[in-house]
This record gives sequence, structure tokens and C-alpha cells, in this order.
Amino acid sequence: MITPVLLSGGSGTRLWPLSRKSYPKQFVPLLGGETLFQAAARRLHGPGFGPSLVVTGSDFRFIVTEQLAGAGIDPGTILLEPAGRNTAPAVLAAALQLAEQDPDGLMLVAPSDHVMPDEAGFLAAVAEGAEAARAGKLVTFGIAPDRAETGYGYLELAAPHDPAAPRATDLVRFVEKPDAGRAAEMMASGRHLWNAGLFLFSVRAIREAFEAHAPALCAPVSRAVAQARPDLGFLRLDPEAWAEVEAISLDYAVMERADNLAVVPFAGGWSDLGDWQAVWRESAPDAQGVATSGRATAIDCSNTLLRSEDDGLEIVGLGLENLLAVAMPDAVLVAHKDRAQDVKSAVAALTARGARQAEAFPREHRPWGWFESLVRGERFQVKRIVVHPGAALSLQSHHHRAEHWIVVEGTARVTLDEEVQLVSENQSVYIPLGARHRLENPGKLPIALIEVQTGGYLGEDDIVRFDDAYARD
Amino acid sequence: MITPVLLSGGSGTRLWPLSRKSYPKQFVPLLGGETLFQAAARRLHGPGFGPSLVVTGSDFRFIVTEQLAGAGIDPGTILLEPAGRNTAPAVLAAALQLAEQDPDGLMLVAPSDHVMPDEAGFLAAVAEGAEAARAGKLVTFGIAPDRAETGYGYLELAAPHDPAAPRATDLVRFVEKPDAGRAAEMMASGRHLWNAGLFLFSVRAIREAFEAHAPALCAPVSRAVAQARPDLGFLRLDPEAWAEVEAISLDYAVMERADNLAVVPFAGGWSDLGDWQAVWRESAPDAQGVATSGRATAIDCSNTLLRSEDDGLEIVGLGLENLLAVAMPDAVLVAHKDRAQDVKSAVAALTARGARQAEAFPREHRPWGWFESLVRGERFQVKRIVVHPGAALSLQSHHHRAEHWIVVEGTARVTLDEEVQLVSENQSVYIPLGARHRLENPGKLPIALIEVQTGGYLGEDDIVRFDDAYARD
Repeated sequence: MITPVLLSGGSGTRLWPLSRKSYPKQFVPLLGGETLFQAAARRLHGPGFGPSLVVTGSDFRFIVTEQLAGAGIDPGTILLEPAGRNTAPAVLAAALQLAEQDPDGLMLVAPSDHVMPDEAGFLAAVAEGAEAARAGKLVTFGIAPDRAETGYGYLELAAPHDPAAPRATDLVRFVEKPDAGRAAEMMASGRHLWNAGLFLFSVRAIREAFEAHAPALCAPVSRAVAQARPDLGFLRLDPEAWAEVEAISLDYAVMERADNLAVVPFAGGWSDLGDWQAVWRESAPDAQGVATSGRATAIDCSNTLLRSEDDGLEIVGLGLENLLAVAMPDAVLVAHKDRAQDVKSAVAALTARGARQAEAFPREHRPWGWFESLVRGERFQVKRIVVHPGAALSLQSHHHRAEHWIVVEGTARVTLDEEVQLVSENQSVYIPLGARHRLENPGKLPIALIEVQTGGYLGEDDIVRFDDAYARD
Repeated sequence: MITPVLLSGGSGTRLWPLSRKSYPKQFVPLLGGETLFQAAARRLHGPGFGPSLVVTGSDFRFIVTEQLAGAGIDPGTILLEPAGRNTAPAVLAAALQLAEQDPDGLMLVAPSDHVMPDEAGFLAAVAEGAEAARAGKLVTFGIAPDRAETGYGYLELAAPHDPAAPRATDLVRFVEKPDAGRAAEMMASGRHLWNAGLFLFSVRAIREAFEAHAPALCAPVSRAVAQARPDLGFLRLDPEAWAEVEAISLDYAVMERADNLAVVPFAGGWSDLGDWQAVWRESAPDAQGVATSGRATAIDCSNTLLRSEDDGLEIVGLGLENLLAVAMPDAVLVAHKDRAQDVKSAVAALTARGARQAEAFPREHRPWGWFESLVRGERFQVKRIVVHPGAALSLQSHHHRAEHWIVVEGTARVTLDEEVQLVSENQSVYIPLGARHRLENPGKLPIALIEVQTGGYLGEDDIVRFDDAYARD
């Protein structure tokens, strides 16, 4: 049994506007109906795999559980990092957590924001690697390159690999991101593979490697795990200990220093979807190089990605060449295809201007479900709110606003001061300013309701919480 | 006194998505806060001008009155065309209508979708032309070209004009849209001006010209005017007579055949804003050729127009060259700048797909105000509705939906079966399925309300009207 360890802490901005700090790309259905995180969890679910261990940030904990539930996958263990510290501390924390049950078990470390179309091929490569991992090797998976890519690091093998019969092979060394000439040489050599950040090893082997090569991480990470606090099914790493942990990648901290490395080549296709150019490449562009998604119409375009991320939004491209255009109801990106790496500068410009779209997503996720603002006036705001079955908002009141709730799907249980009532589709409730109220979903189906707020101040921070199932302030 | 005759029937699609069939470009604030129609009406309002006569389509009648009211301009006469028939019939109908009061009066015919930044200069040109018009001439205004434009027709003068002292001059002939070489020659000659579709003549002179050069138009247009039916302050041309009228431009029908033409040169700048390239040109592009509007951010762009048409929508352009991008919450256009003339093919593609965005605007205008759909689910829809002071929706009922109304601004008078009540900010009313109801604004300020509909069918056509102030079915 191999434990999948899914790393899901990142917050890439290079896929803005679809990926934002508050809702990063692994949680978005970038290709097809599934999110990348769901695809990663499903890929490592089934025979041969035990329950997964997810390492993520506190802000994303309810998104993780919601998406695992949506994919029908048991949540396993979810470790919450108080702050992002890159991959090495996350992997060590996972290893220490797993060591409590099985110090000799195997763990497969995988990012949760990549695509691997050939899942059967990857599972075969994992089986190949498991043997070496059981023998104490630190196994990486190297992707057979299909182009002279300068954006990735490479793994150098002692001899050319055979794509038809991949075998675990000794690693000669890691190669940093190359220039174009060196990339072309490596592509031609047959001895170089992309470093995809996928690892397989035993808990014991990786612990020993950390002790040998990154001893300074061991004490604070051990403390963070030992003092981790269970919280509503999550395990929160100790923030004080974690604050002392250096942010460093697994490659730098351990892999590039270890001498018990093996590589399993994998030729089934892979992408880190690192920018919109990569998304274009993985979106099956047609003969003219045009890839569209959603309600998008391309006329006389070439080498262009055109995406609409909302059913109510049409995007039309006319006479475009080497262009990336991604439209959402609150934000649109139009970029030259060669500038895909610079989308972060677009986000920086919006941040500088104080635009909420820089970081916030139109749909805001909460432990109990999500909401989105539909329209905002001087003295009113309309929200659409969805509450998961069995979930409850906090018991709360507002100083500056009254609220009308109209239930449009499902049946809500509403507490209003001393009274509790059921409110079903097509019924409404009025929450006067200052009244204590709570919204719960006692049923088996989601509730959807429309909230109309009126008042002089409508900020999210006008909330007094008296009781909260999710232990928020 | 000159009567301004504003032609406002068109429905250009080349400025899609901002200009759509249901809400064409003259009614949109394309440059600055005023709409083009309002700017045109204001330009010809004041000393020397009488009340205006607007010729427009039936669908736009309430937009015209709303926009004139917004600009503080008396509505004058509004002639409604049962169908568009190009400019000649519209001008003749206007002349016949004006002849009833003053057969020798002057009329200034102007499109309502152009820009003329130098309004004082234009009024001086009008004063210059009035003299010739009073002497029986058909006066056109010719724009001094600032580039060798191939998209316009030209007016050829007998001698070069003096931009410093424009005078009414005899016209030698009309020149069709030229090729690039001919355009450059004409630009250099000093004897050629753009034909802007602006005319000044007496009612008598243009009637005589129609009788001489386009006699077939006279009988049906005369009947359409004689049998016009007053309707709530509008004057509806008779549809049966109008159906017999040929669609033809004033230039083809009359101007190119008449021998009593004069031209007043005008060098104060003008644009028909015929496509997004023209809008870019009139939007004061910076040294790199970048023009932005609304919440738009251009990074490393050149010769690019970037517009966001909604406060809640950010658009970012990155590394763009020769690009046009216009974003609205329901539709986005991204086009190469040289393809501005082909935006109609984008609209055609959407029409073929049945996308409502091809013709419909997110905000739908009605005699009483406007509404927009905020969100639509399986069995619910949320709308924002604004009702003008003094206006009333029809007394109506629905077979398939119930409605919740929450007033968020102003005070509404609501009729619900036999009961009439006032509903003010922060109050709500429930309209059960089948109930007869009416919404009125008895006050001096607009009402804004949020309507939440629930039911199995939510189309606009589920409406039974019992009584309507605007005589709709």
C-alpha cells in the first residue's frame, strides 16, 4: 500500500484571472469538468493506494474537503500548514505524520496542479518505482521531453532510456533550467528527462535523507507535527514551530545532495500547466493552433487560446495571432502568447490599484458553502448563497444592515432571535437590523438562496458571531 | 430658427458588443459620459434652433425620450418609422411633417451617432450655410480630411477651400469611396472634403428636389405622414404606406442628381465612429497609441484600444500590438485592429449559434424604465428593476411564476389583486402565481427593486396584460 501525499499549498498567479490567490489553479476545472486537484486525487486512488494525505493551507481546507467529497474520495488526513514553506518541510511533515502508523510505508509525493493524461501508464511507472523505493531508493519520475523546453529542470541518466520499457535507473545529476541550445542538446541525447516534482520513497528513507542532508529542518518540523492540533477533522501544524522552518524545495534540501536516487522514465505526457501557454498546449489546439473553451468563437485566428469561464459570457476573437484571451464576468486577460510568463505583472498592477480581482474570486468559499455578490448599489447588495447539506452559518447579527432571504432551492432552517422556522423554495424571511440569526441546511440537498441586503454599510466585516460550528472569530 | 432633424434609426453592429441591435451605438456613452445621441441633440439645441424632430424606430422610442429627458432637452416631435428605409424617406417625412407649420423653414439634418468635438466651429459653419439654404440651395457640410481615408465618400469643390475662412462653395460632384491612391491625391488637392451626411436646406427646397429627382418616393411618404397616428406623444408613420417606400439614401435619391448644391467646409474634426478603429482614433491614444476606457490596464501595449464597459469588470492587456478589446459582463470582443470592419461577422457567428448577446443588451429598456437579469437558475431568476418617476408597469399576471419584490431605493405603489399598498426601501412584497399585480412609481425619484422569480418557466412571454399605460399587447 502506497500513501498518496498531495501537495496543495500553492497560489500561482500566472493563470490569472482563473487562478487567484483565494482560489488557486489546482481547485479550478482548467481542462474538462474535473479540477486538477480532483484529478490528482483520483489518479492515486484505488488498488495499491491507501488513504491520501493532503498538505494544504488553512484557507483552502474547506475547498479540499468539498472537492474530495465531490470526487467521491475519502478525505484521509489533511495537514494544514500555518504558512507556505515550499515542498521540503511539507514532505517531511507528511513523512513524520505517516511514521506514526508505518515507519516503513511507501509515500508517493505529487503536486496537485499538474496534468497526466496517461493514467494507466503512470500507475505502471509507479509500480516500477515501488520496487526501488522498497529497496531504500529515493525515486523520482522523469518525463520524456517532447520539446526543448527551457522552463523546467532536467534529470540526467547514465544511459539513454528505452521509452518502450521504462525501468528505474540511477540518476547522474540534476540539471538546472537550461538555455535553448542546451535544452536542444538534452532533448536529443535520450539521457535527459524533465523533473516533474513527483517522488516515491519509504517513510524511513526520506526521514534518513532529511537527517543526513537537511538536519536543520528536522527539529522544527518534528515539533510542528508533534504539537499539531486536531481541528474539525483537519490537523493543524503548530504555528510557532512552523515559523522557524526554512522555506526550501525538496530538490534543494535533499534530492540534489542524496546519493541513493533512482529515476523512472515516463513517456505518457505531462504538464505543470505553469502558464496560459501550457494550458493552450494541453487544450488540443486544432490545425491552425486554435484552442477554445466554453462560449468562445474564433474567427480567422491562429495559435490562439480563447476561453470563456462563464455560461453567460460570450467571447469572440477576430483575426488574432499568438494570443491568449481568458474572460470571466469580473476580469478579462488578453495577452500576447509569448508573454504568458508575465501574467504575474498584470496581477501586480491590479494589486497596486487595489482591485479586488487581483486576489479575490467572484465566488467566495466558506466552510458551509459559498456566496457571490450579484450586484452592489449605494445602499444595497444582492448575493447568491449556497449552503451544503448539513452545514450551518454562524449565529450572527449585523449593526448596519437588514437582510431579506428568499429560498430558491431546498429547505432552510432559520433561527431568528428566539424563533426557529423551516423556510422552503419560494418562501422568504426578513432579518431586521440587529437581530440574531442563523441559517442552516438540515436537508440532503444544497440550499440556494438570494439575499438582499439594505443598509448604509455592507462590508463583510459587519458581523458579530455568537456561535460558529467552524470555530471562526 | 432652424429645426434640427436627428436621424436615429440605425442599428450598427460594427461596434458590437457595446452597440447591439436592441440598443445601437447612438444611445451608448462611447466617449465620455454623454451618449452620442445626447451630444447630437445638445449640439443643435439653443439660440437659433427650434424644437427638434427625431426620426427613429419604434423599438427605440422610449430610449429617445429617456435620453432627451436626461439631457434636459424638450422632446419636440418624434416620428416613428415602422421599418428602416435609409435616409431619403426619413428626411422627406420630416420635411412633410415640418411643412404643416412652416413650409419655408430651414431644417438641419444630422445623424445622431457621430462626434464633432468643435461645436462652436460647427455652429459657425451652420450659420454660414443658412444663408445659402435660405437662398434655395441644398447645403452639405464637408469635413476637411486629416488622412487619406478610403472608408468615406468625398465632395469635390471647384477650388481649394480656405480652412481659416470657410465659405459656402459650389459642389462639383460627389466622389464614391476611393482606393488608397485616389484618396491620397484628394487629400493633397485641397478641393476634396469628406461627405459627413450633414445637410441644411429649406423645407420647400428639399420637397422640390424630391419631386424633381425622386418622385416615386413622394406619394407613399406623403401618405405615411398624412395618415400618421399620434401615440403617447410619438407620431407613428402609417405602416401600410411606409411598406411601399423604397429604401434609399438621401445622397443617391436626391443629392447626387440636384444642381443647386452648396458645400460648407468644416475643419473642426469629425468622426462617424464607424468601427472600433475609429473609436480608438477618437479616444486620444497616448504616445504608444494606447487608448483605454473604464477599468482597463495596458502593460507593454501599442496601437491598442482596451475598454471595460462595467465598473465590476477589470480588463488587462499584456504585450498587445494592433489590438482592439472590449469587455462587457456578458460579451467580450478581441480583434486585430485591421479587422475592425469585420466585427459584423462576429455578430453573424453569434446569431448563427443563437446566442442572445448577438442582438440583446444585458439591460433591457422598457417604457417605464429598465431591467437586467442578475442570475438565472433552473427554477429561479433574479432581476434588478428600475422604474422612472411617474411610470407604471402594466397590470399583469403570470401563469408559471411567483415573484418576490424587495424595494432597495425609492417608494413603490404596488397593486396586488384588490389591494393597493406603498412599499418603501427595505420592504418586500410577495406576488403569488396567478395574482394580478402592478408596480408604479408615484414619487419623484427612481425606484430600484430586486425581483426574485421562482417557477418552472421564467420566460418574458409568460405575461398576461390587463391594462397598460403604454398600449402594449
